[in-house]
Amino acid sequence: MPTPFQRIGIIGKCGDPGIAATLNELFRYLKTRGHDIVVDSRSAELLENADIKGAYIERLPELCDLIIAVGGDGTFLAAARAAADFETPLLGVNLGRLGFLVDISPEQLSSRLDRILAGEFKSEQRQLLSTHIIRDHEIIHQQTAVNEVVVHRWVTPSMIEIVTSIDGVYLNTQRSDGLIVATPTGSTAYSLSAGGPILHPALNALVLVPLNPHTLSNRPIVINDNVVIEIRFSQTKQINALVTCDHMEIPDVRINDKIVIKKSAKPIKILHPADHDFFHTLRSKLNWSGYPA
Amino acid sequence: MPTPFQRIGIIGKCGDPGIAATLNELFRYLKTRGHDIVVDSRSAELLENADIKGAYIERLPELCDLIIAVGGDGTFLAAARAAADFETPLLGVNLGRLGFLVDISPEQLSSRLDRILAGEFKSEQRQLLSTHIIRDHEIIHQQTAVNEVVVHRWVTPSMIEIVTSIDGVYLNTQRSDGLIVATPTGSTAYSLSAGGPILHPALNALVLVPLNPHTLSNRPIVINDNVVIEIRFSQTKQINALVTCDHMEIPDVRINDKIVIKKSAKPIKILHPADHDFFHTLRSKLNWSGYPA
Amino acid sequence: MPTPFQRIGIIGKCGDPGIAATLNELFRYLKTRGHDIVVDSRSAELLENADIKGAYIERLPELCDLIIAVGGDGTFLAAARAAADFETPLLGVNLGRLGFLVDISPEQLSSRLDRILAGEFKSEQRQLLSTHIIRDHEIIHQQTAVNEVVVHRWVTPSMIEIVTSIDGVYLNTQRSDGLIVATPTGSTAYSLSAGGPILHPALNALVLVPLNPHTLSNRPIVINDNVVIEIRFSQTKQINALVTCDHMEIPDVRINDKIVIKKSAKPIKILHPADHDFFHTLRSKLNWSGYPA
Amino acid sequence: MPTPFQRIGIIGKCGDPGIAATLNELFRYLKTRGHDIVVDSRSAELLENADIKGAYIERLPELCDLIIAVGGDGTFLAAARAAADFETPLLGVNLGRLGFLVDISPEQLSSRLDRILAGEFKSEQRQLLSTHIIRDHEIIHQQTAVNEVVVHRWVTPSMIEIVTSIDGVYLNTQRSDGLIVATPTGSTAYSLSAGGPILHPALNALVLVPLNPHTLSNRPIVINDNVVIEIRFSQTKQINALVTCDHMEIPDVRINDKIVIKKSAKPIKILHPADHDFFHTLRSKLNWSGYPA
Repeated sequence: MPTPFQRIGIIGKCGDPGIAATLNELFRYLKTRGHDIVVDSRSAELLENADIKGAYIERLPELCDLIIAVGGDGTFLAAARAAADFETPLLGVNLGRLGFLVDISPEQLSSRLDRILAGEFKSEQRQLLSTHIIRDHEIIHQQTAVNEVVVHRWVTPSMIEIVTSIDGVYLNTQRSDGLIVATPTGSTAYSLSAGGPILHPALNALVLVPLNPHTLSNRPIVINDNVVIEIRFSQTKQINALVTCDHMEIPDVRINDKIVIKKSAKPIKILHPADHDFFHTLRSKLNWSGYPA
Repeated sequence: MPTPFQRIGIIGKCGDPGIAATLNELFRYLKTRGHDIVVDSRSAELLENADIKGAYIERLPELCDLIIAVGGDGTFLAAARAAADFETPLLGVNLGRLGFLVDISPEQLSSRLDRILAGEFKSEQRQLLSTHIIRDHEIIHQQTAVNEVVVHRWVTPSMIEIVTSIDGVYLNTQRSDGLIVATPTGSTAYSLSAGGPILHPALNALVLVPLNPHTLSNRPIVINDNVVIEIRFSQTKQINALVTCDHMEIPDVRINDKIVIKKSAKPIKILHPADHDFFHTLRSKLNWSGYPA
Repeated sequence: MPTPFQRIGIIGKCGDPGIAATLNELFRYLKTRGHDIVVDSRSAELLENADIKGAYIERLPELCDLIIAVGGDGTFLAAARAAADFETPLLGVNLGRLGFLVDISPEQLSSRLDRILAGEFKSEQRQLLSTHIIRDHEIIHQQTAVNEVVVHRWVTPSMIEIVTSIDGVYLNTQRSDGLIVATPTGSTAYSLSAGGPILHPALNALVLVPLNPHTLSNRPIVINDNVVIEIRFSQTKQINALVTCDHMEIPDVRINDKIVIKKSAKPIKILHPADHDFFHTLRSKLNWSGYPA
Repeated sequence: MPTPFQRIGIIGKCGDPGIAATLNELFRYLKTRGHDIVVDSRSAELLENADIKGAYIERLPELCDLIIAVGGDGTFLAAARAAADFETPLLGVNLGRLGFLVDISPEQLSSRLDRILAGEFKSEQRQLLSTHIIRDHEIIHQQTAVNEVVVHRWVTPSMIEIVTSIDGVYLNTQRSDGLIVATPTGSTAYSLSAGGPILHPALNALVLVPLNPHTLSNRPIVINDNVVIEIRFSQTKQINALVTCDHMEIPDVRINDKIVIKKSAKPIKILHPADHDFFHTLRSKLNWSGYPA
């Protein structure tokens, strides 16, 4: 039976030589099976097979039928942002420690991949967030986030005042350290540390989580993901605020800019082994005790 | 123009003579407009017009085209549970203090109703929860909740162990004081006190909120509302646990019973004045500061 | 060198035959060293040496120079309440799992005890709480707690209103599921699940933690431990409230009773191995990651 | 009867012309009573009496028998830091909105001051924090805080790793946005927003509150205030962290610096009207409902 994934791209954890063993094993495995393989440039340097040419991460999704990310959830996020505009599905291999997104461990590499490449897998869609920075009615920046967009104070020791509207309807003005807008994927990352709830990945929702709000009744709010969230600052004097997407900074956001956040045009597609169980990952990552014997 | 609501049922706050003034004003207003009026038995005693016969709350929805609840959110919940099996829409009049569900104040009574009865309103659907208690493969109790179902320890000074599954998939076993399953409507009630997030009313979701869990990483989880939640106890010795729906007890739940919670077959229909704004109610009820001048 | 602890009392985990091995090992160890040994009645039945007569737990502290509790933190609490009126120091042996109070593991039993019985140990004082129930100006119950006193709703599905005063000064009236008053010892137990802070054992303080309060800004309050806390209910209709001390019920508390909580007259004395480190126990029990290598 | 406060210093809210009315009223009141008055330079410009010479805030405490701060809690903090090395007591006048520290309202100005200046007042001591930045075994900065010291990430989008020791004993290593060390005075300020408990002002304690910690069981810890807290970073690559004292930045803290926090040598002395009630302020500031009628 032909595999649906002839051309496979590999993206490795950036700058970590510790991935070399798993990377080479994965490469040999795919080579033996006759796949066409493209590897990101940094990872290509770690391959024993010197013939392989690396490609830019951003180019991989359009060249390939499947992207395999090797590393932690951070590596997967980078791969997912690159794949945002394409239909290319993603698969995650961890380095020995289960992640929310990288759920194939090195020991199971070949047995898990045998089945997935034969077409036996669970496929799941995850929505991304698209952030636009608007200045004088013009879009001056656009960035994509898989986990969360964070607006927070910066080089400014006291709280900021953030004004939020949902679909043009005023929600509130909050004095706080900032505001997180997280996807279900991001709900188990930074948002959870800030007191946000866990959102099931299948839920079409976003959560707004205030960071250390001055008003103690400012609590996380879960809303539909088909809305437009608009955030601006109520201060008039210059402050420094920072907007990050998956912890990467959007440069030079100013006090009079508007930050507009909505769902990206296309979701990404994540593949899992057929027995994938989100609740199992949750119990494992959050140290919940297992089923009593 | 004919009103869509010829026959109107009135349900007043149970056992509170303080509603008499508003009740009589509402009655006179509707009488003058030529509506047929049915009033719940307890409230009928408070009417100056002695001719009116009261009816059981449970009967009102099938007799009427619209139910008006007069009181606080608790009164509205009682009306809503009665209306659960019918299509009869609900409207809430408060007694001077804005509620999440009762958003018409006595001073605005006639001006607001003029418009609503003329067909100018916002209509909104809210999902209810249906709880079944299963013993030896048989349903021994069924109850409906608008806000939340709570499973908690009872006459048992230490924590209980609760095992939860979602659509037949094991979620977790938690030692705690109990577990709340709340609708978006209930997310601003008891669930909020227990640390749960606010769910927007338009969201098709439920939230599971642990009550004082022993494991500190047991956090609220938001899931789709088209699931079946099954809860059982992992203790084998007899404990006392209590299951409540909107704070009303389901009697005689035992240690070996299963508690099955899912969305009710039909949502209820709530009418609001055309300018209704959920975020406005939220800011008011939670004492968030308003928009800075 | 003579030991300061000639007569030693042993209190075992109640109703758990799993302690037999550790119990017998401890007994043989102490016998060989020539100590006089008294064992609680239930544990005495688990000893291979049938000659030993058991004694009531309550009698042990006055008969002995040292009490060794074998079990979990719960066993230690029972031993500590029995020792509340005496100066008898306490030592805790766990059954393989470190507790906050039972910090000697079975494998280290003889090496740890060699040193402690030779006088090489850390000694620490912990304050207990004494609760009086006052009805018509008379004390009708008194009970001692090591961890916490909890006032909570009971067979009453909705919240209760609790009025608290500190040293005769009104603190607040809160609608909630209840109120915890915890010692530093109790701050890592139930209080922590309810959102309370960790209090260092050396701190002369108590913490008041509201249980799921209706007002979201009702937060834990830490106060000096040399105060008198008075709690009463503001409801006038009969409700059922429960007062527990270390999860044991004070029977028959009524709506008009006053609950008066203050520090017990004497602290208990806990012995630890000389290298005992509270922060180490904290990291271990709360699953904090260790010192990075 | 002679007043104990012949020479009185006035410190006004910096840069707020809105204080002019209260400032002038206070000035006339004190002048009429024959006090010697010194005013901070900025506030002096707002006085109608043009003869008054202003003085540096830092010089006022040593020149005066009493400092009166006019403004909000922030103005009081500035006055308190200036008074840290002296015994000069402090008194707070608000601008119409009760603060935790400024508890005399403009309408009560003369009646309250009549009594206080006649010696009828409550006096209270509050501990301050002294922070030293140590580089290569040398102190390179020292700063005083009334409310809190905060160590947090800065121009660094991801979490930082903070290693904390108490009196030389390792407490923990936490990944988070930062760490707050707050006094009882500061426990109702930023620390409360970050999830910290309220510490009664009479408590000799500090609270360590993690900011959005990665490990969910990292919780606030309350410790005695006679300890030395040492904080350092576990990262080796250069990050940017910021240390603030009452929201004012200590410049140029580097990755290898040690941050040492302990109680200041002297407490400050705060005067209150004789009927001052901390719990009353707490109920008012946190919007707790009052005593039910």
